Amino acid sequence: MLTLIGLGLQDEKDLSLRAIEAAKQADKVYIELYTGVWSGSLKNLEKILRKKIFVLQRSDLEENSEKILNEAKRKKVALFVQGDPLIATTHSSLLVEARKRKIKTKVIHNASIVSAVAETGLHIYKFGATVTIPFPEKIKNQKPESVLQTIEENRKRGLHTLCLLDVNEGRAMSVAEAAELLLKWQFDDVFAVAFSAGKSKIAYKRISQLAKTKFPTPAVLIIPGKLHFTEEEFLQNI
Amino acid sequence: MLTLIGLGLQDEKDLSLRAIEAAKQADKVYIELYTGVWSGSLKNLEKILRKKIFVLQRSDLEENSEKILNEAKRKKVALFVQGDPLIATTHSSLLVEARKRKIKTKVIHNASIVSAVAETGLHIYKFGATVTIPFPEKIKNQKPESVLQTIEENRKRGLHTLCLLDVNEGRAMSVAEAAELLLKWQFDDVFAVAFSAGKSKIAYKRISQLAKTKFPTPAVLIIPGKLHFTEEEFLQNI
Repeated sequence: MLTLIGLGLQDEKDLSLRAIEAAKQADKVYIELYTGVWSGSLKNLEKILRKKIFVLQRSDLEENSEKILNEAKRKKVALFVQGDPLIATTHSSLLVEARKRKIKTKVIHNASIVSAVAETGLHIYKFGATVTIPFPEKIKNQKPESVLQTIEENRKRGLHTLCLLDVNEGRAMSVAEAAELLLKWQFDDVFAVAFSAGKSKIAYKRISQLAKTKFPTPAVLIIPGKLHFTEEEFLQNI
Repeated sequence: MLTLIGLGLQDEKDLSLRAIEAAKQADKVYIELYTGVWSGSLKNLEKILRKKIFVLQRSDLEENSEKILNEAKRKKVALFVQGDPLIATTHSSLLVEARKRKIKTKVIHNASIVSAVAETGLHIYKFGATVTIPFPEKIKNQKPESVLQTIEENRKRGLHTLCLLDVNEGRAMSVAEAAELLLKWQFDDVFAVAFSAGKSKIAYKRISQLAKTKFPTPAVLIIPGKLHFTEEEFLQNI
């Protein structure tokens, strides 16, 4: 059996009672930390579960997943993943591979940035397609045309765009970096929302101002569509 | 101080350690259950917290919120809300009203259907704007033009639409009812995904077939856009 368990947005205190129960019942517990930046402590997590937790590397999941799948055939394997477990496609691939092998699977959900952005006062039903702002080296310093196009299409329809900020080798892009990149790619210097779910911090400023603002990491950037007056009122009262 | 605490998707076992801590420290604990359908037990929740929990009615939040706000001026007030707390605009209005009165506010996130839908294998970044399928009596039996238009616009862009199903007086619309309504409104009889986060159940069938399928409630319906081959593969292995 393979159980994917969400870690939520901040640290080990985000674990649900259901998650703790499932991890305690597992024969082997893994944690995957390379697709994001987790503010928790592995030591505290092990203390809560009274269990050793094995840290997976990218290659363990993306190239050598066979090892974990084989283990899950005979044993109860639990895998901790940041946020809500299936937001990254890596984990949904693992789930489908398990099912093809007739391994029982289970998902224990937790908080995700995808819904936590509602803490900015922006209405969740007005978010269009989501994008990730990539590190320039990943796109050979070219403009990420499809990202910019998605934001534009959302804006034309009055919709907000949640821009996730890329993570590379455990380092998350900062809001200032993302804002600078958008300006470099000739994006309009509009008002945007920066949001850190872990620190519960919100900023509402022009992109050029965000490029000069110190803001906690990890965070996201939201390019708003047409603001409803209640959204505007919320952002004036952060 | 006003703390909004997410209840997650299923029952009291979805509570996080952070949520339990905050509720235990509160002087008064409320719960709001009318905007959704919760499968948990109030009695078990009270047992976990060793505290009385007061159930709020719609009027307590929408017309008489002043009472709670006044209380939060002097005391630590916690309010339990299903899913992730700010998905319903009612709660974000409460937050902004609190801030205008200089009351400290805090949000403790939890799992939400908005991210849990990734359990269907559909990629989260390909979801366009969200809609709610309304009960016909709420729209005087007319076609909900803006809902149908949003789904169409999403489809044209290859994006999925998460259709939340309306809740009225604690009764959630079933998948079969929603499917029947869509057909009545002359929506194409396409393949759609039904998903119950609480029961972890997925169905992938034509809308006309879903209209005849028994499916757990509460649930959501997803009208897919263009499927990536990994999404297709996932849905073939549910």
